[in-house]
Amino acid sequence: MRIAELSQKAGVPVPTIKYYLREGLLPAGELTSPNQARYDDRHVQRLRLVRVLLDVGRLPIATIRDLLTKLDEPDPDVHEVLGRALPATTGVRESSDPAVLVAAHERVNTLIAQRGWLLSGDAGTRQAVAEVIAAFQQVGTDAEGLLEHYADAAERIAVHDLGFVARASDNEGKVHAAVVGAVLGNSLLAALRRMAQEHESAKMFGIRDDTCQAAGPD
Amino acid sequence: MRIAELSQKAGVPVPTIKYYLREGLLPAGELTSPNQARYDDRHVQRLRLVRVLLDVGRLPIATIRDLLTKLDEPDPDVHEVLGRALPATTGVRESSDPAVLVAAHERVNTLIAQRGWLLSGDAGTRQAVAEVIAAFQQVGTDAEGLLEHYADAAERIAVHDLGFVARASDNEGKVHAAVVGAVLGNSLLAALRRMAQEHESAKMFGIRDDTCQAAGPD
Repeated sequence: MRIAELSQKAGVPVPTIKYYLREGLLPAGELTSPNQARYDDRHVQRLRLVRVLLDVGRLPIATIRDLLTKLDEPDPDVHEVLGRALPATTGVRESSDPAVLVAAHERVNTLIAQRGWLLSGDAGTRQAVAEVIAAFQQVGTDAEGLLEHYADAAERIAVHDLGFVARASDNEGKVHAAVVGAVLGNSLLAALRRMAQEHESAKMFGIRDDTCQAAGPD
Repeated sequence: MRIAELSQKAGVPVPTIKYYLREGLLPAGELTSPNQARYDDRHVQRLRLVRVLLDVGRLPIATIRDLLTKLDEPDPDVHEVLGRALPATTGVRESSDPAVLVAAHERVNTLIAQRGWLLSGDAGTRQAVAEVIAAFQQVGTDAEGLLEHYADAAERIAVHDLGFVARASDNEGKVHAAVVGAVLGNSLLAALRRMAQEHESAKMFGIRDDTCQAAGPD
């Protein structure tokens, strides 16, 4: 297909596709003339994946290029992707108060030690968790009451995530599942959490009745 | 304090503060002359909250204004915030294939019915979950293997979230905890999930050894 049809199928404007081609996020099409290239369904799939990593995962271009390069290796290393290449993006900017951030880092180290989590020396995810804990503090709230419960939930979820990855038949499929699951999994979990919160809130706070109960018979 | 000091304390540039003032995200300071206003620590706290809702929660300005208005009510309705005002933002754009989205909506309705979740007629969170399920499909993956496990996790997390909200002493504190917890809670959960994935991956895929085991004694 021509670039116009690729654009229509993937729902991505032509100038954006050209930008992705220049940035190496999309492999070049097969040249049919010096100025025209032909694309196929793999380009449609790749474009959709790039959009998810950009729009939903908010990953930097360089990280996406790195992940896609690994995905295109003949026999990619699944742990390399799940262990290191996939970042934990939180949207939190570095806390403005260094003391708060230092305390948060100590809290994270305690958590990791107590749970016996096997983590690489890479500080990426530690930094991410510490930044969120510090952000709670910065807005006058304390994450402490949530931290252990969330870590319990994260452990259970990760077991299912790895099951989801392991079900793919080859390493290429496993890496694809790991990348998609990491990014879209956060959105799925967040949306379901909001739903479940509404349900719990309806049970706990739902009926707001300041009037008196109807009097029973005397 | 003057606006320059407010800017420094909250880590937000002066032109951005002026924009928030115009948009009603920050209450006006106390006028000390026709061109100067005085701000206090409540403005610092509010600015930090606005940054979290914008940068981390990626909430639209109008939604943030609505949430802050509720927060400033004398006795805010907690369920109004947890039940309706807080959106489920996923970053997913509407799927390009309507048939995929329709099927995803049906899956969401089945999930809600089976779990007996009490939800308002408002379609916001249903739409959010359906969009993510459709997005999995669009990139050639199926969320089905994760959905029930994530819903289980979401239920457990929501119970702790409501506990976190209920611990605040008054309704203003409860609404504040609900807003902060909804947005930063997603980031905390996402970052912990990445950590736990690395741990699980290290156990499952960590040792990549294509060489033979050392031979034992004959």
